[in-house]
Amino acid sequence: MIENRKPIIGVMGPGNPKDSEILKHAEKIGMQIANRNWVLLTGGRKAGVMDAASKGASEAGGEVIGILPGDSDRDISDYVSIPIVTGVGSARNYINILSSDVVIVCGMGLGTSSEAALAMKHGKPTLFTKVGKSKLDFFQSLTNKKILFFDEADALFEFIEKNLIKD
Amino acid sequence: MIENRKPIIGVMGPGNPKDSEILKHAEKIGMQIANRNWVLLTGGRKAGVMDAASKGASEAGGEVIGILPGDSDRDISDYVSIPIVTGVGSARNYINILSSDVVIVCGMGLGTSSEAALAMKHGKPTLFTKVGKSKLDFFQSLTNKKILFFDEADALFEFIEKNLIKD
Amino acid sequence: MIENRKPIIGVMGPGNPKDSEILKHAEKIGMQIANRNWVLLTGGRKAGVMDAASKGASEAGGEVIGILPGDSDRDISDYVSIPIVTGVGSARNYINILSSDVVIVCGMGLGTSSEAALAMKHGKPTLFTKVGKSKLDFFQSLTNKKILFFDEADALFEFIEKNLIKD
Amino acid sequence: MIENRKPIIGVMGPGNPKDSEILKHAEKIGMQIANRNWVLLTGGRKAGVMDAASKGASEAGGEVIGILPGDSDRDISDYVSIPIVTGVGSARNYINILSSDVVIVCGMGLGTSSEAALAMKHGKPTLFTKVGKSKLDFFQSLTNKKILFFDEADALFEFIEKNLIKD
Repeated sequence: MIENRKPIIGVMGPGNPKDSEILKHAEKIGMQIANRNWVLLTGGRKAGVMDAASKGASEAGGEVIGILPGDSDRDISDYVSIPIVTGVGSARNYINILSSDVVIVCGMGLGTSSEAALAMKHGKPTLFTKVGKSKLDFFQSLTNKKILFFDEADALFEFIEKNLIKD
Repeated sequence: MIENRKPIIGVMGPGNPKDSEILKHAEKIGMQIANRNWVLLTGGRKAGVMDAASKGASEAGGEVIGILPGDSDRDISDYVSIPIVTGVGSARNYINILSSDVVIVCGMGLGTSSEAALAMKHGKPTLFTKVGKSKLDFFQSLTNKKILFFDEADALFEFIEKNLIKD
Repeated sequence: MIENRKPIIGVMGPGNPKDSEILKHAEKIGMQIANRNWVLLTGGRKAGVMDAASKGASEAGGEVIGILPGDSDRDISDYVSIPIVTGVGSARNYINILSSDVVIVCGMGLGTSSEAALAMKHGKPTLFTKVGKSKLDFFQSLTNKKILFFDEADALFEFIEKNLIKD
Repeated sequence: MIENRKPIIGVMGPGNPKDSEILKHAEKIGMQIANRNWVLLTGGRKAGVMDAASKGASEAGGEVIGILPGDSDRDISDYVSIPIVTGVGSARNYINILSSDVVIVCGMGLGTSSEAALAMKHGKPTLFTKVGKSKLDFFQSLTNKKILFFDEADALFEFIEKNLIKD
């Protein structure tokens, strides 16, 4: 599937999560993506999970694609190395999904749920982390495929390496 | 808010609902929109809730805007009177929401859930019908506002007339 | 090609034309569209050719679709009866083109030229009016098809009725 | 303007140029972008100027962002290292422009002219090369700013380094 280039891993999560533990988790996920020499893709804003994952990847020396909703790079995370300025508002959520080889949903919010739903609708491998059971049940009720949930980052990346992105 | 033009009511629902009762309900909603001389807006395809609501509105003499995802009008519902051909795929879900004065979520599916989430995110009055309790709880968990749910079409339109679209 | 619905005629032109005669011409074109019971489509803003064509169609009792770039209906022409709020900025120029059965280019500006080019690229019947010879030559140099230019509105509509939209 | 990241230079040109000399020129431009440790951005397809510029940049060891119109990476240039899959068709032309710090227009075609027009409309520094005088005159007639044209790649990059992208 992927040739001549690095895998792109989308990390989708709320810009304003209630639980700060999610941010630490997102940062760890970003770091692990970079450690594998993969590329992180987020919604690009200097907020919440987007910013935390970007920090983790950037500080581990990785590349970070930020797909911005606005028509300029205001509000961009300091950790984005490749800004894509779309100018299409929340329509950019669709671009986030299509451009990711694997989608990791980290935490949940309104925008995040729209991205998780589009990812599943368009057949992208979609992995959930830091999402509660009742919220997982919601997505499970909308698909015939088994929802993939991983409490810990290690198990999540083990799954990706074993099943989705092979050397 | 609305001057010089008719209110536009978006009806969002699955293209392939499991329960045929949802289609009858969608048709009734379309009819009630047209009866009030309002305009129906859907995703425009000849499938599921989009098609059923369009049929109801069209047969009651109403206008039907169809916001199509593809780059032509193939797969268009026969009941759409105003086709908008976007060519932007599922990014058109965002346009569905922004163009509706009120969003009615009828039934649930992956695409529908992305529309419900974007509607709430962007502050559109969002009303649910034919959506089960656990699914409503999902959306309730993502917002501070009270989720609006109406079992019956009559109650739903009574609410809209009383609170959202006044003469 | 067009069944069950009225033809949609897109009129594309500058929001700030240098020559006020273009606005009178655009108003006349809008009126002629409405007189034939066709639907006018424009970029929806309260400016220049968009506004003038909408005025002409509206005052002749016709319907006017306005495909707005912003995420609300601020700046909308008072004469738009069917606002489509896209939120995708200038990406909406592509939607303008795909949604029109025929594209009339009235006057020229940067945005207008992007619409004329996309219309021709995507195979839409594209008719020019109030466009100078050297500008027509530019578009002619980019296509093998003969550029269609009409000085007068009457000749323009005669061509459309004879060749593009038949009863 | 640009901090913490490499400058992104968009190269826009026809997918099917008449003149093969344009492809050699595009390849040279891509190479020069990479030689300066800047990032190339194109429309991403395996065709014409997009492909040639990508080849030049890639073979010189540079990064290449490809903003693809389709909903998958079919038809992607082999030389794209960072594919962005938009799924929004020609609406992606707007994203090409907004995401570029500088836009180089190399050759001319319908799609290219829409990009050149949007670049100028949205205030991006826009430089033309391998574009004939009458075509330059067209764009000059649509703006008050002086159109920037450079016959040779060396002069073009000298201008960029002196005026647009400083160390």
